Amino acid sequence: MAQDMTLLWGSGSPPCWRVMIALEEKNLQGYNQKLLSFEKGEHKSPEVLDMNARGQLPSFKHGDVVVNESYAVCFYLESQFKSEGNQLIPDSPAEQALMYQRMFEGLSFYEKLNAVIYYEWFVPEEERHDSALKRNREALATELKLWEGYLQKVVHVQHAHTNMHACTPTHTCARSNIALFFTSFQLSSGSHLAGQSFSLADVTVFPTVATLFRFGLSAERYPKLGEYHALLKERPGIKASWPPHWLENPEGQDALKDV
Amino acid sequence: MAQDMTLLWGSGSPPCWRVMIALEEKNLQGYNQKLLSFEKGEHKSPEVLDMNARGQLPSFKHGDVVVNESYAVCFYLESQFKSEGNQLIPDSPAEQALMYQRMFEGLSFYEKLNAVIYYEWFVPEEERHDSALKRNREALATELKLWEGYLQKVVHVQHAHTNMHACTPTHTCARSNIALFFTSFQLSSGSHLAGQSFSLADVTVFPTVATLFRFGLSAERYPKLGEYHALLKERPGIKASWPPHWLENPEGQDALKDV
Repeated sequence: MAQDMTLLWGSGSPPCWRVMIALEEKNLQGYNQKLLSFEKGEHKSPEVLDMNARGQLPSFKHGDVVVNESYAVCFYLESQFKSEGNQLIPDSPAEQALMYQRMFEGLSFYEKLNAVIYYEWFVPEEERHDSALKRNREALATELKLWEGYLQKVVHVQHAHTNMHACTPTHTCARSNIALFFTSFQLSSGSHLAGQSFSLADVTVFPTVATLFRFGLSAERYPKLGEYHALLKERPGIKASWPPHWLENPEGQDALKDV
Repeated sequence: MAQDMTLLWGSGSPPCWRVMIALEEKNLQGYNQKLLSFEKGEHKSPEVLDMNARGQLPSFKHGDVVVNESYAVCFYLESQFKSEGNQLIPDSPAEQALMYQRMFEGLSFYEKLNAVIYYEWFVPEEERHDSALKRNREALATELKLWEGYLQKVVHVQHAHTNMHACTPTHTCARSNIALFFTSFQLSSGSHLAGQSFSLADVTVFPTVATLFRFGLSAERYPKLGEYHALLKERPGIKASWPPHWLENPEGQDALKDV
């Protein structure tokens, strides 16, 4: 049904994977696609540049409409195919707020991951500093603790409400606002990032989490992220779009084992 | 009407300004707000950390719902107050696609600006390199040329269509897809970023453009960006949220005059 769509992509690229997950979740299989190699510089080929002046993957087209930024594609697909496949933006205001918040925090998460695992790719040899890499690793560890906290099992559920209007001014909220978010959804271990349902927050952030574990993150140090990863990697839309070179070579790296 | 909202913000911060423009455009005046000082480190105060574990501004709360990421706040407000104030997400699929695309390209734009004007803030003295700053300035110049192109006056309007389905398979599109975008909307000089109407693309990207000119960007070198800036700075929602310390001291800097 998606024959009027074209995706140019690279294996293992989280932005490309976000788009592929969104397409699967919206039941938009059968699109035209071409796997290109970053190593061979194919993301700078005329074929890509013709669709994407930045020479980046993903490059995506629906009919004559070109949308290349991965978050933009996710929003566009959910908006245009709202009633198809899985609903990816929740209805309740509080869940929506949490979804947007986690999606955009997800950009910092991804950036901090890249600043560690691709440090040598991004920084020319003569400009590298051990102090910078050490700081980047510490920033990633701090970020990981935040997300581990977001996925913590909730103990206090007596404040639970899924609609913010249910919290009247007479409601005594002794806990912090962030805690209220947690209690709002009765998040249990390994649940989704913005409540009970899989949403655009998971579409956009899961590829970062999977890349962390591919690069050796310890599920013993980060058990909630480990559970989240284990749960979602079995999801059909995620399995169907798993990076092919990870399948070919299931052994990852260990660059993050001590983070 | 927005007495159940609270915004903690800093003057001249593009992320804070995005939120303030969105609030103005949605007619959500009268919210509780507190101007904090980055220089005094007030973004790391308990008051902020209580709402925002990252210790960043903006920090925003609506009732019990906390949303801090500026793009998240923009999406949340448009979704929750769809029929109030100005509509910020266009209806047509092609305009929506362009809006999402420009919004997320806007993050690269902002990042490249910061990598030049805040280089010394972000990079410790012993890790600074002239070669890095030179590369950052070149990347910003390349980025500026892209945006200047997006705002170019359109000459070829014979391909104009606002609905992607109007372009049938028999339609001969000799021009590139990016050019098709330009023609789709008959963009004229100084128009908005995603078509005829002001949208979330303008809410999120205008603060970056205004900061560029505040830091001395030449409107002679970038005339379309100059026109866009001149047009939008007169918009009521933007005037009402103009950074107070820019009003107090209208003289900017000249760090970008040669970019």
